[in-house]
Amino acid sequence: MATQTETKNNSFILSGPKNIIYEDRPVPELKDPYDVLLQVNFTGICGSDIHYWQHGKIGDYVVKDPMVLGHESSGTVLETGSSVKSLAKGDRVAMEPGVPCRRCVRCKEGFYNLCQDMAFAATPPYDGTLAKYYVLPEDFCYKLPEHVSLEEGALLEPLAVAVHITRQSNIKHGNTVVVFGAGPVGILCAAVAKSLGASKIVSVDINQERLKFIKKFAEPITTTYVSQKISAQENAANIIKENDLGEGADVAIDASGAEPSIQAAIHVLRKGGSYVQGGMGRDECTFPIMAACTKELKISGSFRYSQGDYQTALNLVSNGDVKVKDVISRKVSFQDALQAFEDIRDGKGIKVLIGGPE
Amino acid sequence: MATQTETKNNSFILSGPKNIIYEDRPVPELKDPYDVLLQVNFTGICGSDIHYWQHGKIGDYVVKDPMVLGHESSGTVLETGSSVKSLAKGDRVAMEPGVPCRRCVRCKEGFYNLCQDMAFAATPPYDGTLAKYYVLPEDFCYKLPEHVSLEEGALLEPLAVAVHITRQSNIKHGNTVVVFGAGPVGILCAAVAKSLGASKIVSVDINQERLKFIKKFAEPITTTYVSQKISAQENAANIIKENDLGEGADVAIDASGAEPSIQAAIHVLRKGGSYVQGGMGRDECTFPIMAACTKELKISGSFRYSQGDYQTALNLVSNGDVKVKDVISRKVSFQDALQAFEDIRDGKGIKVLIGGPE
Amino acid sequence: MATQTETKNNSFILSGPKNIIYEDRPVPELKDPYDVLLQVNFTGICGSDIHYWQHGKIGDYVVKDPMVLGHESSGTVLETGSSVKSLAKGDRVAMEPGVPCRRCVRCKEGFYNLCQDMAFAATPPYDGTLAKYYVLPEDFCYKLPEHVSLEEGALLEPLAVAVHITRQSNIKHGNTVVVFGAGPVGILCAAVAKSLGASKIVSVDINQERLKFIKKFAEPITTTYVSQKISAQENAANIIKENDLGEGADVAIDASGAEPSIQAAIHVLRKGGSYVQGGMGRDECTFPIMAACTKELKISGSFRYSQGDYQTALNLVSNGDVKVKDVISRKVSFQDALQAFEDIRDGKGIKVLIGGPE
Amino acid sequence: MATQTETKNNSFILSGPKNIIYEDRPVPELKDPYDVLLQVNFTGICGSDIHYWQHGKIGDYVVKDPMVLGHESSGTVLETGSSVKSLAKGDRVAMEPGVPCRRCVRCKEGFYNLCQDMAFAATPPYDGTLAKYYVLPEDFCYKLPEHVSLEEGALLEPLAVAVHITRQSNIKHGNTVVVFGAGPVGILCAAVAKSLGASKIVSVDINQERLKFIKKFAEPITTTYVSQKISAQENAANIIKENDLGEGADVAIDASGAEPSIQAAIHVLRKGGSYVQGGMGRDECTFPIMAACTKELKISGSFRYSQGDYQTALNLVSNGDVKVKDVISRKVSFQDALQAFEDIRDGKGIKVLIGGPE
Repeated sequence: MATQTETKNNSFILSGPKNIIYEDRPVPELKDPYDVLLQVNFTGICGSDIHYWQHGKIGDYVVKDPMVLGHESSGTVLETGSSVKSLAKGDRVAMEPGVPCRRCVRCKEGFYNLCQDMAFAATPPYDGTLAKYYVLPEDFCYKLPEHVSLEEGALLEPLAVAVHITRQSNIKHGNTVVVFGAGPVGILCAAVAKSLGASKIVSVDINQERLKFIKKFAEPITTTYVSQKISAQENAANIIKENDLGEGADVAIDASGAEPSIQAAIHVLRKGGSYVQGGMGRDECTFPIMAACTKELKISGSFRYSQGDYQTALNLVSNGDVKVKDVISRKVSFQDALQAFEDIRDGKGIKVLIGGPE
Repeated sequence: MATQTETKNNSFILSGPKNIIYEDRPVPELKDPYDVLLQVNFTGICGSDIHYWQHGKIGDYVVKDPMVLGHESSGTVLETGSSVKSLAKGDRVAMEPGVPCRRCVRCKEGFYNLCQDMAFAATPPYDGTLAKYYVLPEDFCYKLPEHVSLEEGALLEPLAVAVHITRQSNIKHGNTVVVFGAGPVGILCAAVAKSLGASKIVSVDINQERLKFIKKFAEPITTTYVSQKISAQENAANIIKENDLGEGADVAIDASGAEPSIQAAIHVLRKGGSYVQGGMGRDECTFPIMAACTKELKISGSFRYSQGDYQTALNLVSNGDVKVKDVISRKVSFQDALQAFEDIRDGKGIKVLIGGPE
Repeated sequence: MATQTETKNNSFILSGPKNIIYEDRPVPELKDPYDVLLQVNFTGICGSDIHYWQHGKIGDYVVKDPMVLGHESSGTVLETGSSVKSLAKGDRVAMEPGVPCRRCVRCKEGFYNLCQDMAFAATPPYDGTLAKYYVLPEDFCYKLPEHVSLEEGALLEPLAVAVHITRQSNIKHGNTVVVFGAGPVGILCAAVAKSLGASKIVSVDINQERLKFIKKFAEPITTTYVSQKISAQENAANIIKENDLGEGADVAIDASGAEPSIQAAIHVLRKGGSYVQGGMGRDECTFPIMAACTKELKISGSFRYSQGDYQTALNLVSNGDVKVKDVISRKVSFQDALQAFEDIRDGKGIKVLIGGPE
Repeated sequence: MATQTETKNNSFILSGPKNIIYEDRPVPELKDPYDVLLQVNFTGICGSDIHYWQHGKIGDYVVKDPMVLGHESSGTVLETGSSVKSLAKGDRVAMEPGVPCRRCVRCKEGFYNLCQDMAFAATPPYDGTLAKYYVLPEDFCYKLPEHVSLEEGALLEPLAVAVHITRQSNIKHGNTVVVFGAGPVGILCAAVAKSLGASKIVSVDINQERLKFIKKFAEPITTTYVSQKISAQENAANIIKENDLGEGADVAIDASGAEPSIQAAIHVLRKGGSYVQGGMGRDECTFPIMAACTKELKISGSFRYSQGDYQTALNLVSNGDVKVKDVISRKVSFQDALQAFEDIRDGKGIKVLIGGPE
């Protein structure tokens, strides 16, 4: 049993802005009969990890004490609490990294992602998963079928983000969809939209390499548009015209957080279309509010994931609908994690996975 | 029969920006067996009438040819087409002033307010209802029960706007609601929210007289807040604190179109709350998009009215739930219509009704 | 502190079919830092209590060991666990009597009433609330405002059932509603439907006294119909004709569980109308399935309550929308509880409250 | 122009129960500027055609006067009304065969399939499409892309039925679905459910050949179950066990109309699952109403199609998601139509297409 034979928990820690250290932390203990002790196998790097590393904070979330980074992980079960029934030692799982209070109004309504008391990995003051060991409740571990790899398991996190965003859009069979931003989440949104029966997807970015990737990833219904330095209305008009979108797209998703994308997204929609703000960017932007009003757009923010999104992500990978493996640019060992952070910061690769410490 | 005995259709016409003339137009004819000829009895003045009068346009809608103003009307049936079954000469009706194409995708989905080919009274190039006669299809006329007056019938239009706005908010039993703007639509939104079981309503405006009015109109659950020249966050925090709204309001409605209101509305909401943009203002505003994203707000524009809103408005008046009569500041004769327009432009009174020409 | 000063927990126990005993049970202990120890003040008698008493089981739920009855209760806080923040000793609360696992898919989707591991008071093997003491988690206790009595607090349970039923019906402003069954739940469904803006309510029963009560309770929009020994189609046609329901009612609710009511409910609905099965009766019935199919009815079962229903019930009582006090036929002391059970079994009175043991 | 050069409209007419005649009817005229005259190319045979032919009526719909049969058709545009913009002579179209009034409450809410004044092909007193010529409004004609054949166009009708049924089920990504009945509509429901991301589909029938077909048609996620002569609960338990459906299926669809299927469908569902009654059968059946109540099932009838279903059907065929071509058993000429009716009546083949008269 890990807690008996092992006392070192090698961890990748942000000790201050731009300051990473490795440290042996205590092995976490099971606090609840439903808890499970996991050995972490793979962890992807998220934009938020990079942001905390570079700035020491995201909005109101400030890293005050040294904090383990990482929250896109898969792992292997080492130990199970006395009430755990669905998991056993050796099981390979995807790790949903945020545990809500389960008691507040939002939790009991099914919107646990909006819980005020959420304990989310690598969101201060909670430690992340870039460590050898991590504890989660049984119901936040998703057992991987044999044909789904641990690498894919780690990627369920960004895929669950994309599932949640797409779910907020209420996309319907045959809808046309424009996705702004072709980073990992934008790419996965396109793939999820395709699996839900979108008839056309247009991916918009300024990075042509990423557009090339997404076109192939969500073929054959995905086309691309390189955002131009023209007005949002003009970019929107171009997208509509080039893709024969009639009175406008049914659904627009922003996975970029960039003001020009947000504006173009509102203008690209038909009357009654729906828009989801999935990308994170500056607190405020100039927003075409009257177009949103008179077109009676349905707009939703999207924050992390909740009811069933992780399971849906697993289904999509398991069924072969989303070939999440293809977004892995490369894998590095735990001791090379910092180099991987630098690469992602510098825009090299789409998704890099860090192997858990041996 | 009007079309035989009468050839003059006295009309209140916008012939150019700030230029009103009275003119006898031809009496309109029934073009369809479902059409009904009405004598207009009362017409309320809407902000859009004032705007067309002052500027000759609203956004892309430009008044090119002289256009009859007015669209908030009630009337009396004079003549019915051969297929009309539910109405007879002498019936008193509220007039829903926009007729959609009934054939496009939006119409067939039930969102006829979003029809591209909508013919809406006093929206160029379509003449309005400030005339002696007007033709509507039977299904856009709502027969008034005996105990509902023609004056109340004219007010169903702004009430239907408020019903539609409130419907977009998905307000639920016991929700707390903040309504920005205490003009006619804001006032009516508060009353509709109350009738749907809101537990608390906060009305926000800078005009203290209007706040006094609304407090009484939607008592006892309505409180008021005078918007301060402080940040949107601070106004929102005050509203929450003064009204004990916990983590924020469940629903916020903007019926003002003003940027400070829009911003405060986003900040006043709890996570997962809903926001409706009902007020018309400048095309763009600085918008707290990240708060909308991370709180996963549900935002909707609201444009006119559709499936059932007019009927709901009639029910609310008929059942006594909304005492729409109280918002009538005064009634003027048709020949004094211009004076009434000037009063409304100058902020005198809440709703003024113009009697139809004799 | 109760657990120190008191060791006797006087309880009203079903020891076998038709066999009630009083017994001192151990005072329950707080097992979780969020638990609250309550002294029970009032408990209403539910049809399910009567059924367990008479038959020793309901469907698959069989009373194998002696079980405390009762689940419609209010109480006073005696002791709070270390993590409890919102309640203090002396607070008066309504008691939501079923605690879900909080971990299964249904719980995390917001449908905790469908949790397979629900521990529900007086549903075997879980003891009920007809005892001096009871333990509940903080979030299943609803603090009563000063102006809401403990008697009203006990009645939130059947009111929450009615709120849940009505919520399943998706009733809209101005809808016409037919409620079958004028027992406590049917009566409260009518009141809830009224508070949600129903334009007409028809209450149907064979018991004319109950119809008289409900007509007054949900006036002025409620009419009544005495169910006749004619076909379901004929009863439905009569209801439509007498109440001018046009092509049929928008919403029908069964709160009776009786086959003739269920059949008439399906026939009384317009195309696209909605039906809720709230009443419990025989496992199977002859059902007009083709009418349901071709009218494209939306049908829902309704089971207990979940997300927000108890809070909504409290709002309705607190705001004065539902005068739940009026359904209390009388109050008896704990030692007279068996007599009260016999009265309810024999159809005497609408709702009888049993005072908690001194 | 057809109406000038041609005066004969060869038609396949039901002149009384079991009595088919061929007759030249007048060529139908355009009555509205939005109308389109079509030459019918292919028509599939529906169960309702067979039923009218054998019994002269379906429920309350009685064939009093001779009536042209057929409503699953594709055609070619011969002539267009003066207001038609989206179609031109020679265009190949799928024909949506029911035209609603466009004016009633249901139509304006978007549920035009529930219009009381629907004029539906081959539903008395309206003639069907088994004729040389047929008139439809422009918006009920769906232009086929070049790569979609007229044969496929005729099959959009049953596919639209399946789309509508599946839409009523609110199926979600990853849901498990059990479809009862493996006739054309059941087969197509499975295919639509698959395209919406169902994770498992179980097809249930007594006809093993049809099950073999569907397994291949909606592979690889579709399994089959041969309905046994055991209780509905036992059949349901078998389906759950054999297919590892846990607490039950998320969605059940009846496309059979048979009582044993309906009963098993209710029992096969998990708590909170959804059921759609798509199949037509006897007016009443013995229904497990308490299981529906306590499991809080969401049940919907499904009747024909409405908002967007035909377009969705076209998208599914055009994108290759549903290979509708594979359900065509064979094609016959117009003069052999009666033989085709006899074959379908006798259970030979899945879908037979009749070529339009030359």
